[in-house]
Amino acid sequence: MKSGLYVILATTAALAACSDQPARTAAGTEQPAAAAPVLPSWNQGETRQSIVDFVERVTDPSSPDYVAPPERIAVFDNDGTLWAEQPLYFQLLFALDRVRAMADDHPEWSETEPFRAILEDDREALAGLGMRELLQIIEATHSGMTTAEFDAIVDDWLATATHPRFGVPYTELVYQPMLEVLTYLRDNEFKTFIVSGGGMDMIRSFAERVYGIPPEQVVGSAGELEFSLVEGVPTLTKTPGINFVDDKDGKPVGIHRFIGRRPIFASGNSDGDLQMLQYTAPGDRAAFGLILHHDDGEREWVYDRDSHIGRLDVGLDEAPERGWTVISMKNDWSKIFPSPDLP
Amino acid sequence: MKSGLYVILATTAALAACSDQPARTAAGTEQPAAAAPVLPSWNQGETRQSIVDFVERVTDPSSPDYVAPPERIAVFDNDGTLWAEQPLYFQLLFALDRVRAMADDHPEWSETEPFRAILEDDREALAGLGMRELLQIIEATHSGMTTAEFDAIVDDWLATATHPRFGVPYTELVYQPMLEVLTYLRDNEFKTFIVSGGGMDMIRSFAERVYGIPPEQVVGSAGELEFSLVEGVPTLTKTPGINFVDDKDGKPVGIHRFIGRRPIFASGNSDGDLQMLQYTAPGDRAAFGLILHHDDGEREWVYDRDSHIGRLDVGLDEAPERGWTVISMKNDWSKIFPSPDLP
Repeated sequence: MKSGLYVILATTAALAACSDQPARTAAGTEQPAAAAPVLPSWNQGETRQSIVDFVERVTDPSSPDYVAPPERIAVFDNDGTLWAEQPLYFQLLFALDRVRAMADDHPEWSETEPFRAILEDDREALAGLGMRELLQIIEATHSGMTTAEFDAIVDDWLATATHPRFGVPYTELVYQPMLEVLTYLRDNEFKTFIVSGGGMDMIRSFAERVYGIPPEQVVGSAGELEFSLVEGVPTLTKTPGINFVDDKDGKPVGIHRFIGRRPIFASGNSDGDLQMLQYTAPGDRAAFGLILHHDDGEREWVYDRDSHIGRLDVGLDEAPERGWTVISMKNDWSKIFPSPDLP
Repeated sequence: MKSGLYVILATTAALAACSDQPARTAAGTEQPAAAAPVLPSWNQGETRQSIVDFVERVTDPSSPDYVAPPERIAVFDNDGTLWAEQPLYFQLLFALDRVRAMADDHPEWSETEPFRAILEDDREALAGLGMRELLQIIEATHSGMTTAEFDAIVDDWLATATHPRFGVPYTELVYQPMLEVLTYLRDNEFKTFIVSGGGMDMIRSFAERVYGIPPEQVVGSAGELEFSLVEGVPTLTKTPGINFVDDKDGKPVGIHRFIGRRPIFASGNSDGDLQMLQYTAPGDRAAFGLILHHDDGEREWVYDRDSHIGRLDVGLDEAPERGWTVISMKNDWSKIFPSPDLP
């Protein structure tokens, strides 16, 4: 549980960084969609080719690696794989915004840590927050309401909040090349799933619209739930406490529990995805592991082995041994985000 | 947890009954498939008509009750709804068979309750078993192996074990009319799910083959799981302990967690399905609740308000108030099981 919380919450250093509001970058090199119908925002090269080769291999009935459509399960991490995760996991930015929005109803927060530190933007205190305080923030903002109320709060935030660097709604910071991979796989009769350390309820609120992935194909971390009849109306209430942390060892567990089949395609970007990649593509059958390496500081961010958010260390070492493909964002992607106004 | 265990396990009275091995009944009235293409094993009448009317209402784009295909979620209980559950839940019969099969490797069981009572068919002792002992039986037979090993054990049991009354494999005791409902719904772009108090791993081993429901659409109770690399091989091990009980209040919780949408069609047969029916079809929108009433003692079994297995009491009272349809197995079904040799 501890390691999982580490991932869905932020480290203290990262928490402090979220107030930094770096200046918006100049628009990146904008490129028109390539003429190629498949993966147009991917540069030609080994990375793109390895994806195409794999899909052709498992969908060709005459291939020894042919996989029947029901077994074509593809799983994707969300934070840092399908959408950005800097300067902080977007779900934590949501939680901080919620603390500010809820402050009027909680006068006691002006004298209660960690809420006081958030409300006063006390960076020194924020830098000293530990796991327990971060869990307090998540519980205060993610429980104590019905699932319908939570959905409405998230919808409103996604519609109005903007990213500190790019100044656009968070759902515009999804990766165009990964949207193309999702579509390409589905066009080839794959069933695409999200398997995220983030909270399921939040991801489900936009996954169908933004990724084309329906709620029943979103696996993630989850809090506790209680069912009751409120004046005869069936109601699900989000209650305090973490029910499941879908990270690290939890990812293969979540895959077995929610999907019940071993995927043949897995994509992630951090060591939180390592066990999911191991479970999917151990090398004894046709399966594909894909790791996104954030190495483009101009158009996005550069981070890997030492990052508090999305640390990618063991995964980089294991990739060549296990035959996983590593995407260089800088070299392999001609476009990062869907909007023409963004890189 | 207690009430949930009650349902996936058997009561002491029922446990004793499992050794009764009632004589096989004479073959029931065998009827050829009707000419009607839809729901052929259903007799004409209000029950069948209410199902057809509902499906036509929500799939007709000009109807005020029209529901778009992605929201056409249908959920089915398994034990007593899709297949039989007498004289004991089939999963518990499996567990008892496993205790007998594993006895050679557990010489200590000859002197340890509840195992001694099972091995010696000591009905008096079996009748005295409580919840704790029943949990011991489930844990001893459902943990301590990899998920792949468990699947192989279940496959073998399903292929070889036969039902004490009907003398056929358990997977032949699925209800033909319910198979037709599943097909009818899927033909109308519904997505069909199982939401069962029984164990997910066991149901998934046959649901795709028997019901046409893939593993990722099976929600059920589950034990704990651990991921590890065993000599480099990614392995999931079933460990002792119950992770989730998908029964009563747990059913709407399981639906939210695994499916993430409110169904518009729910079918069950016991008070364990009550909350699922309430959550699905509270009367404020187009939704359908369907309850199977076991009232055919000649072709199947008669049980409801006082039964230890599949007790249906509150559900019978609430059905008329909430507009749920109650199936009379005796009057509404012209055929119970798929095989021509069975009723």
